Amino acid sequence: MEKEQFLEVYRHSLSHILAKAVIEIFGKENVQYAIGPQIDDGLYYDFVLPRPVNKDDFKTIENKMREILKRKEDWTRKEVSRADALELFKDQKFKTELIQDLPEDELITIYETGDDFTDLCRGPHVENSQELLSAAFQIKTVSGAYWRGDENRDMLQRIYVYAFPSKQELKEHLKLIKEAMERDHKKIGPQLDLFMFDATAPGMPYWLPRGWKMFNALLEFWREVHERHGYQEIAAPQIQKKELWVTSGHWAHYRDGMFVVPGEAEDGSDTYCVKPMNCPNAIMVYKKDLHSYKDLPLRFSEVDVIHRKEKSGELNGLFRVQMFRQDDDHTFLMEEQIEDEISDIMDITGELYETFGLTYKAELSTRPDDFMGDPALWDKAEDALKNILIKKYGEENFEINEGDGAFYGPKIDLSMKDCLGREWQMGTIQLDFQLPLNFDLKYIDKDSEHKRPVMIHRAIFGSFERFIGILIENFKGAFPFWMSPYQVGIVPIRVEHNAYAKEIEDLLRQNRIRVEADYTDKNMKEKIKAFKQMKDPYIIVLGDREAEERTVSINLRGSNKQLQNVPLDTFIQMCVKMNKERTIDLIDSVEE
Amino acid sequence: MEKEQFLEVYRHSLSHILAKAVIEIFGKENVQYAIGPQIDDGLYYDFVLPRPVNKDDFKTIENKMREILKRKEDWTRKEVSRADALELFKDQKFKTELIQDLPEDELITIYETGDDFTDLCRGPHVENSQELLSAAFQIKTVSGAYWRGDENRDMLQRIYVYAFPSKQELKEHLKLIKEAMERDHKKIGPQLDLFMFDATAPGMPYWLPRGWKMFNALLEFWREVHERHGYQEIAAPQIQKKELWVTSGHWAHYRDGMFVVPGEAEDGSDTYCVKPMNCPNAIMVYKKDLHSYKDLPLRFSEVDVIHRKEKSGELNGLFRVQMFRQDDDHTFLMEEQIEDEISDIMDITGELYETFGLTYKAELSTRPDDFMGDPALWDKAEDALKNILIKKYGEENFEINEGDGAFYGPKIDLSMKDCLGREWQMGTIQLDFQLPLNFDLKYIDKDSEHKRPVMIHRAIFGSFERFIGILIENFKGAFPFWMSPYQVGIVPIRVEHNAYAKEIEDLLRQNRIRVEADYTDKNMKEKIKAFKQMKDPYIIVLGDREAEERTVSINLRGSNKQLQNVPLDTFIQMCVKMNKERTIDLIDSVEE
Repeated sequence: MEKEQFLEVYRHSLSHILAKAVIEIFGKENVQYAIGPQIDDGLYYDFVLPRPVNKDDFKTIENKMREILKRKEDWTRKEVSRADALELFKDQKFKTELIQDLPEDELITIYETGDDFTDLCRGPHVENSQELLSAAFQIKTVSGAYWRGDENRDMLQRIYVYAFPSKQELKEHLKLIKEAMERDHKKIGPQLDLFMFDATAPGMPYWLPRGWKMFNALLEFWREVHERHGYQEIAAPQIQKKELWVTSGHWAHYRDGMFVVPGEAEDGSDTYCVKPMNCPNAIMVYKKDLHSYKDLPLRFSEVDVIHRKEKSGELNGLFRVQMFRQDDDHTFLMEEQIEDEISDIMDITGELYETFGLTYKAELSTRPDDFMGDPALWDKAEDALKNILIKKYGEENFEINEGDGAFYGPKIDLSMKDCLGREWQMGTIQLDFQLPLNFDLKYIDKDSEHKRPVMIHRAIFGSFERFIGILIENFKGAFPFWMSPYQVGIVPIRVEHNAYAKEIEDLLRQNRIRVEADYTDKNMKEKIKAFKQMKDPYIIVLGDREAEERTVSINLRGSNKQLQNVPLDTFIQMCVKMNKERTIDLIDSVEE
Repeated sequence: MEKEQFLEVYRHSLSHILAKAVIEIFGKENVQYAIGPQIDDGLYYDFVLPRPVNKDDFKTIENKMREILKRKEDWTRKEVSRADALELFKDQKFKTELIQDLPEDELITIYETGDDFTDLCRGPHVENSQELLSAAFQIKTVSGAYWRGDENRDMLQRIYVYAFPSKQELKEHLKLIKEAMERDHKKIGPQLDLFMFDATAPGMPYWLPRGWKMFNALLEFWREVHERHGYQEIAAPQIQKKELWVTSGHWAHYRDGMFVVPGEAEDGSDTYCVKPMNCPNAIMVYKKDLHSYKDLPLRFSEVDVIHRKEKSGELNGLFRVQMFRQDDDHTFLMEEQIEDEISDIMDITGELYETFGLTYKAELSTRPDDFMGDPALWDKAEDALKNILIKKYGEENFEINEGDGAFYGPKIDLSMKDCLGREWQMGTIQLDFQLPLNFDLKYIDKDSEHKRPVMIHRAIFGSFERFIGILIENFKGAFPFWMSPYQVGIVPIRVEHNAYAKEIEDLLRQNRIRVEADYTDKNMKEKIKAFKQMKDPYIIVLGDREAEERTVSINLRGSNKQLQNVPLDTFIQMCVKMNKERTIDLIDSVEE
């Protein structure tokens, strides 16, 4: 069986089998069945049932589905009139609503599976249930879902089913799921004391000491790269008067996403909004001075905290938050600089992702129907972006979404694959012809004329929070040395070795190595175990000071290997080197 | 004339002379005179006048005051009844109001100066105006002030006068004022492109690229010191549900100071407040785990952005803002650890201030009448604080404000003197017996009992914003090398030297030296001038690459001296050393 075919036809057909099974178990008069599409790893079907389905029911439903398949029933496609369809589904309110929403004159297709189950469906489907006998499926979970996603409509039970062409593929998928669950940043984050959430601030992460160290190591890396590429970081107000958001267009288009602080003035002039984006800040800084063409491009990077309101049901660890920090930048440039600038941004992108061993992909979205500005400028800009992507990645290695750009400019979206092959939507590089107009931005060109600059909005990680969430899952908490919260743990064997340990702790710290030491009277093994649990890359265990040369024993993360008699200076040089070069793998042997 | 006497009697008497002069100039029927106290550098008097007083009037008023003094009039003190006083001042509405506010049975004192001016006053005053002939005074300014500071009452004209015992002292004071004005951070900050304000975010500074570099250099220093002292930095949500602020007491006691984001729930349960303080965050992090006595003290430092509402008239550059970052910490500890902990905090304080060459002073505020908690604990804590202050500074070198502590614990306030001898209120070290109670904090003691920890709130700079404002004024923008926004400016003599300059720029940056280079085709002198204006400590001017050894010429900030033929490696070592040791003065000679 072709995989494509399986996805299109067989998963969809299996969803009918799921509905048929559920109806046979609960009785037709007790079941309202709604819709059953295929999804990434299988399918689901939404029901109203007389009682909540729970895990104990899964086996029963799966068995019933297999039993139905074994009946080898024929599938019959029929075209019926609207009136016949409404009569046929008169006891099914969701189907009735679906039929009523179809255009009056459209022929309606139904599929019969055997002689006791009919579903409203465009198909296509299998011709006989036996074609599905080789499919491997397993109920994944059941969860609540509103009819048509509307929280004011019926709450349905959605039964999710994994479905694959073969047992082998299902097995592999389940393994991947298990691995992904073990890597879940919402689990690892608290285990490693990286972050936490509290009910008084939903979706707004607390960065705990270890997590904040990692955050800052990542920020330092990001700053270093951008400093080298001529970026200038600013920090700006986080709540600003409505007036600014009216000019920027956020008040009209993004008001519901903002935390709003009303004032006392009747005209709302002292209303403040907590910022959901940094763009207006960079613009204010640009406007402070009169700029010459010689000053451009001007790149104002910014990692201020921003807030966006989300529905509580949509919050998801660090992946979907209400408070975060974008690795943001707004660049002001001349039209003729677009190609060079985007090229440099793609270089930065490569440098950032490759440091983590992550592969990424670019997608270009071009002029939509409702575009603003000069079509010639759009063409020029799109050509520039295309040229760069071709040059960097080759014609075949990026996608073009024609007409999918924002009305104010074309954009490049970044996605990346983690070590499990999962794809993540990441940052965006967005050209903007609109905001320079709204804020009346100018520069003085060679010919002394005032001209309008173009703006680029770009975030490469997307947000630090989300990116760290992905890194936690990608590295399963065992981060590269340079971004490990603590890089070295020191375990004095007994308390009488504390003084010597403190000396070494200070020495490491002076070399900008993040170090923690356990000076309690716990036993050595317990201390080592605790540092191991926190995934410290190296653990130094030390007793009496060596007479001549200071040497230490070092336990490596993720291995039972112990480096013996390592001269301390050699170890420090090794750490300094890893911090400087930002290597992914730990150095696990020492040349003396 | 004794200075103390001058301040008490003479300045106050001079304010009557000011009122008398103004009345003689404008005519008694046209003047309402209110109050005229002495202040730090002289006195002021508030009036309602028929027209605005402006600079051109200053000389006329001063001359009239001198003319009055030369009349050598006697000052007569009289006690009058309430009725007589009301009759006497029946045309003066402010005096009438003042009289009405006095207790019914109080005798009222008035002072007559000559036979045509009377003021309501407790005195004491001079006996004859000639005593004031040697005083040196000069009108400083005139500004608007509300009667009794109430914006719903009359707007008065407040005439400020500098007044000192001698011409020499006035001259010195004026010199100081001039110097202070030249050092005004509100002037220097924008000149050096450190920060700016925009009307859409009053009192919320934008940190410009140069200022943000300096901010981060200061933050890095602060982190390094605190890391060494066992502090753990966290970062927390900035807006949190009302519920949290109710528990902390801020909702009841600090609501007007908070930016509030109302929600939709009728009970206000989804109302958020933008945080004005960090304390509850540290408490949430403490509460995450169950702590043993072995874990204490736990020190959670935090430099999150906080917001406090201020009246727009009270905003003042970086000194009084609505958005800032405290160099905050909350430490959780056992009662018996208070002395050691405060001792360590005072060590940190010393280290922080001395790095800038600033002297500071500590003041202890003790148990007020409305204190909470166990008086024995208060006594113990106050004794501990006192012992430390005596040990560190000597009995004579700190002040005790008896009864001036907060109801929830004693505190130490820090103030410091800048290079002009001006005193600034800085940070606070505050013990707190109350919040651990409100949030039901616990630790498990040796005896396995649950006990209540004590909390210390402390900020040593106070806030980064304010401290930077003071540093700008103290250093007049010429910061120590380690915190200069850019540390080295590179000027290639001609554009053909740009490649060599870029090489050196990269090399400096790799050594963590903040460097900027001017690669434009401007002429050399113009480039040097621009970097000098920005107060870059060193400016490297370079032409052709030297054949054998790389040497450079270096211009020093604040001097015409140029270091010639400095080997680049020597220069880099010098910079690295200054960054490491955080020296205040620039190294201005190079040993080869």
